[in-house]
Amino acid sequence: MGFLSSQLTHDAFLGGKLHLWQPVKGYRAATDPVLLAAACPATKGQSVLELGCGVGAASLCLRTRVDVELSGVELQSSYAVLARRNASEAGYAMTVVDADLANLPADVRARSFDHVILNPPYYGPGTSSPDAGRDKALREQTALATWVDTALRRAGPKGCVTLIHLAERVGDLIELLNPRAGLIEIKPIAARAGKPAGRVLLRAHKGRASRSILHNPLVLHDGARHLRDGDDFSQAATDILRRGKPIEF
Amino acid sequence: MGFLSSQLTHDAFLGGKLHLWQPVKGYRAATDPVLLAAACPATKGQSVLELGCGVGAASLCLRTRVDVELSGVELQSSYAVLARRNASEAGYAMTVVDADLANLPADVRARSFDHVILNPPYYGPGTSSPDAGRDKALREQTALATWVDTALRRAGPKGCVTLIHLAERVGDLIELLNPRAGLIEIKPIAARAGKPAGRVLLRAHKGRASRSILHNPLVLHDGARHLRDGDDFSQAATDILRRGKPIEF
Repeated sequence: MGFLSSQLTHDAFLGGKLHLWQPVKGYRAATDPVLLAAACPATKGQSVLELGCGVGAASLCLRTRVDVELSGVELQSSYAVLARRNASEAGYAMTVVDADLANLPADVRARSFDHVILNPPYYGPGTSSPDAGRDKALREQTALATWVDTALRRAGPKGCVTLIHLAERVGDLIELLNPRAGLIEIKPIAARAGKPAGRVLLRAHKGRASRSILHNPLVLHDGARHLRDGDDFSQAATDILRRGKPIEF
Repeated sequence: MGFLSSQLTHDAFLGGKLHLWQPVKGYRAATDPVLLAAACPATKGQSVLELGCGVGAASLCLRTRVDVELSGVELQSSYAVLARRNASEAGYAMTVVDADLANLPADVRARSFDHVILNPPYYGPGTSSPDAGRDKALREQTALATWVDTALRRAGPKGCVTLIHLAERVGDLIELLNPRAGLIEIKPIAARAGKPAGRVLLRAHKGRASRSILHNPLVLHDGARHLRDGDDFSQAATDILRRGKPIEF
């Protein structure tokens, strides 16, 4: 099942360097996949696998910055179709596999990648609130564990896993990553200076000596609070989101 | 075995609100125990256990801010003697037990505390470098696990464990804390704005819903780099270190 053209929008990313078809309703790429792409330290010619690639936003943003070899896995075929279309229209090669990441095809399982990138689904605010049921919390942790486990398995012996997620899950993510990776880099993403992080970028480097780096936060917006509807991205955020620069860790 | 008076200095903390006897050589309290005390959210009348209390710096700084009931465990008797003397001269009650935290006396093991605070020993920079032996790294992780395990055991069902450590160990610490605590708060401590954290403060709240808060960093020094030998503490650091204010998480 695909989308009708009336169900799609064609949106500019990276200041117009990239355009993506995506559904009007459902998951729509915004800043998170662009930040994910900007955080992946891939270099020319390296292989990159994206888990849950959706319409290909993170992979294609990354490819716009650096000439890497792209593969993506997407459970929903209607999104996988758009990822292939978006890659093709951008002039980039991208292999997109329709698959459940917990049950990858043999040819994907046979490979390892220099980089694995992922933006696991958020279950929305309040899912870990005191009211959330223990069963639900356990299901979510299990789901997140599957994403992280698959990413670590598909990264090569010196591979790097880069992910973006809610900052409120950083403890769960580090609990999953730390025993199986070496260097862990933590980059808080805060909406405003002086505020707790809303998102976190994590880079887990296999085959490196075990230690952590707790980086200074990336602050997305200028000013102490939201004063107007317009774009008030910080200079650092503008460089990443509009100019396609990598994130300085 | 105690220290000779010629082997001791009498140092001012919290802008002179507290004075501590400590040995000229060996572990000397500087900013870390003061930051630890400032991060502990204890309120009047609550019980606080410090693991590895040394000369009592963190506990007595905390007691200077808030009227809590203090207990400390210290392996080295010569430091425990100084902790008792420092408490007594400050006019504070503090029970200091000479013990190995891996082998606490029955009366300490029988108790639980509202707060447990700890500043586990650092094994120095480079211990986790690529050159560090696997055995050594394993010993250190085991040692840190013993500190964290003891802290979590001695905190009550709704207790809070507050610790300060090298930021490079934050992954190891969260791996140990996250499965057994609810809310985990991470407060990076950076020497300068825009730099990675050198230290990290962690608060693990038992009996709270499982999630993380990744707070904005506390920046200790003004300016981009060290320009002079004098005191260039930031206003926030001055408020904590010289005026005894709690850390705003």
